[in-house]
Amino acid sequence: MTGVGEVGERRLIEVFRNLFQSHHESTLVGIGDDAAVVRQGGQTLVITTDAFTEWFHFRIDQISPDQIGAKALTATVSDCAAMGCQPLWVTVALAVPADTSAERVEGIALGMKEAAERYGCDIVGGDTIQAMSDLSLSLTAVGAPFGERVLLRSGARVGDELWVTGSLGGARAGQLLLEKAPRLTLEKEFRESVLRFLQPEARISVARILATAYPVTSMIDLSDGLSVDAHHLARESGVGIRIEKKKIPTLSSAQKVVGALGIDPVELALNSGEEFELLFTLPPGEGKDLPARIQKEAALPVTRIGVVVPAEEGVALADKDGNRTPLVEAGYEHFRPPGEE
Amino acid sequence: MTGVGEVGERRLIEVFRNLFQSHHESTLVGIGDDAAVVRQGGQTLVITTDAFTEWFHFRIDQISPDQIGAKALTATVSDCAAMGCQPLWVTVALAVPADTSAERVEGIALGMKEAAERYGCDIVGGDTIQAMSDLSLSLTAVGAPFGERVLLRSGARVGDELWVTGSLGGARAGQLLLEKAPRLTLEKEFRESVLRFLQPEARISVARILATAYPVTSMIDLSDGLSVDAHHLARESGVGIRIEKKKIPTLSSAQKVVGALGIDPVELALNSGEEFELLFTLPPGEGKDLPARIQKEAALPVTRIGVVVPAEEGVALADKDGNRTPLVEAGYEHFRPPGEE
Repeated sequence: MTGVGEVGERRLIEVFRNLFQSHHESTLVGIGDDAAVVRQGGQTLVITTDAFTEWFHFRIDQISPDQIGAKALTATVSDCAAMGCQPLWVTVALAVPADTSAERVEGIALGMKEAAERYGCDIVGGDTIQAMSDLSLSLTAVGAPFGERVLLRSGARVGDELWVTGSLGGARAGQLLLEKAPRLTLEKEFRESVLRFLQPEARISVARILATAYPVTSMIDLSDGLSVDAHHLARESGVGIRIEKKKIPTLSSAQKVVGALGIDPVELALNSGEEFELLFTLPPGEGKDLPARIQKEAALPVTRIGVVVPAEEGVALADKDGNRTPLVEAGYEHFRPPGEE
Repeated sequence: MTGVGEVGERRLIEVFRNLFQSHHESTLVGIGDDAAVVRQGGQTLVITTDAFTEWFHFRIDQISPDQIGAKALTATVSDCAAMGCQPLWVTVALAVPADTSAERVEGIALGMKEAAERYGCDIVGGDTIQAMSDLSLSLTAVGAPFGERVLLRSGARVGDELWVTGSLGGARAGQLLLEKAPRLTLEKEFRESVLRFLQPEARISVARILATAYPVTSMIDLSDGLSVDAHHLARESGVGIRIEKKKIPTLSSAQKVVGALGIDPVELALNSGEEFELLFTLPPGEGKDLPARIQKEAALPVTRIGVVVPAEEGVALADKDGNRTPLVEAGYEHFRPPGEE
C-alpha cells in the first residue's frame, strides 16, 4: 500500500486530471491551469479552488487569524488574476476543531472579508464544519475576464519575452526568519520580508492592465515559486524557457535576510512560494512601455527576465557569460514523506 | 474564551451572514439559502459549497472510498437541485493525512467522478493538500436554472401546500443500524436503509420537472432532516408550517429498523438528515397531477404533507385529531460540545 506521502501531490493531480475528463461543451478548460474555464449563456467564467491546513500552510504561532483569512483569500483570487480575470464571488469552507475559540474563527472570517473588499469580490456562501484536530480552509473563487479572453498557461510561443511583476524572495525570506530567527522578525529592517510572507497581495489591478492593454500570450501566478511555476508555464505551452539570472528582481530587504541567515539570494528568489506575483509572456517588443505604466498605475516594478525558447532547451538559468544550467523545480510540494523536511 | 463547540454551527452562520454582506449588484442572494445566486452577463448562476470531515460526516469503517466521494458530490449538487438548478461544474478540495493510501484517494475521486456523470456535471478543478490527521473534502458546485428563475427558500405564502419527494427515514435508519446493530446490516431486509445512508441520491431530474412545469413558491433539500429544514423554510419565508403527522411518507424498510431497534417511526422520518429529498411549496391545487407525473418520469413518490400557515402558528405537527405540537428542530447540528453525542 502506497501512502499519498510517497505518491506526491503532482502524481495525484495527474491521476485526477486523467480521471476528471470534461464532458460538457460548456467546460472549455478543466484541470491543469490556474483555474477552470467555463462558458454558459455567452458568459465566460473561471472557477478555482484552494485549500489550506494548519501546519502545512500556516502555523498559528506565526500568523494571526485575520492574516490567515486574508492570505487564503489572496491565494485563491490570485488564480483569477493569473487567468486575466476579476474575482467576483467567493465561497468558504471552514473546518475547525471544537476547542477553537470563536474569536479565532471570527478573526479568520474578518480577514477574508477585508481582503475580499480590497479585491472587489463578494463572499457569497460557505460551510462551517467540525474537525477532529486540523483547522483547515477551502476557498473557491469564480471570476470573469477583464478583457476579451482568458489568459492561459499554454499560449507562450518561442521568441516571446518572459516578464515578472514585483520583487521576489520576500515571502521565503520572511518564512525562514520566522522559523530560524524569530527574534529578528521584530527588527525594522526585516519587517518587510515577514509581511511579504504573512500578508501577500494578489495582483488583481496589474492583471486588469495586462489583460486589457497588452497581447499577453500566457500567464501564471507565482504560488509555488519561480522555479516551479516557470516549469508549469513551459510544460503547458510545450516550450522551453531561459531566465537570465542577473535580471531576476529580488526584494532588497530580503537581501538582508540573505546576509543574516547565509542563504544564496538567487535561490531565495527562485524558490519563494506564495508570493502571488504574475509571470507572463509577451511577443517581442510589446512590453516597451509596460514598466513605466505598471509603476505609475500600480506602484510596482515589472521586469523582463528571460525568453521563451524551443522545448528541447528545457527550462534553464543563464549566467552573465551565457552559460546555462537546468533550473531545478525546487519549490513547494505539499505531500512530503512524513519526517522529511 | 468560548470554543466553537459551544457556540454552535448556527450561531457561526449568523456571524458570517452579518459579516459577509454582499456589495455587488451581481450578487442577488448571498449567505442563507441552499446556494448563493449571482448574475453576470445576463446569465444567472447558483454557487454552493459543502464540506465533510472524517468522524463527523463519515466513518471509514462504515463507508467505502467511492461511497464517500459519491455522497459528498451528491450532497453538494443537491443544493443546486434545491434551487431549481442543474449543477454544471464542480471543484474539489481534498485534505489527506500522509499515511492515507493512494488507493483510498483514488477511490474517493472515482466515486465523485461517477456521481458527477450521473448528475450531468463536470469536475473541473480542485486542490489536494496534506492534513495532519483529518481526511476532509470540500466541494463547490456552480449551476444554472432549469427554468426561468431560481427557487428560493423564501417564497412560501400562507395557504400554499407543503410537499416532499421520496420516503423518509431510511438514511437515519441505516446510520442507526451501522452504529448500533452492524450485524443486521448484512440482512437483506435492512439493506435498503443502509444504502439510503451510504448511497443517497440527489433529486436533479425531479427538480427539473418542478422548476419547469410547476409554480413552486419555495424549495429546500432535506440535508438536515425534515424537522430542521421545515424550520429553515418557514424562517426564510416568514411563515409557519403545519405538517400532518400521518401523511409523512416513511420508507417501509425503515419501519423494520424501527421494530428491530425500538425507535418511533415518525421521529426517524423527522430527524433523518442527508436524505436529499426535496421539500417544497405549491399554491393550492397546483400539484394535482404531480404524484402521477413524478412517479412516471422519476419512479419516485411525492406527497403533500402539510400547509403553510401564518408565522404566529410556528412550525407544528398535527395529529389525526388536529391537535398541534410544536415541531422540535432535532436534526443534525455539526458543532456539538465535545463528549456530548
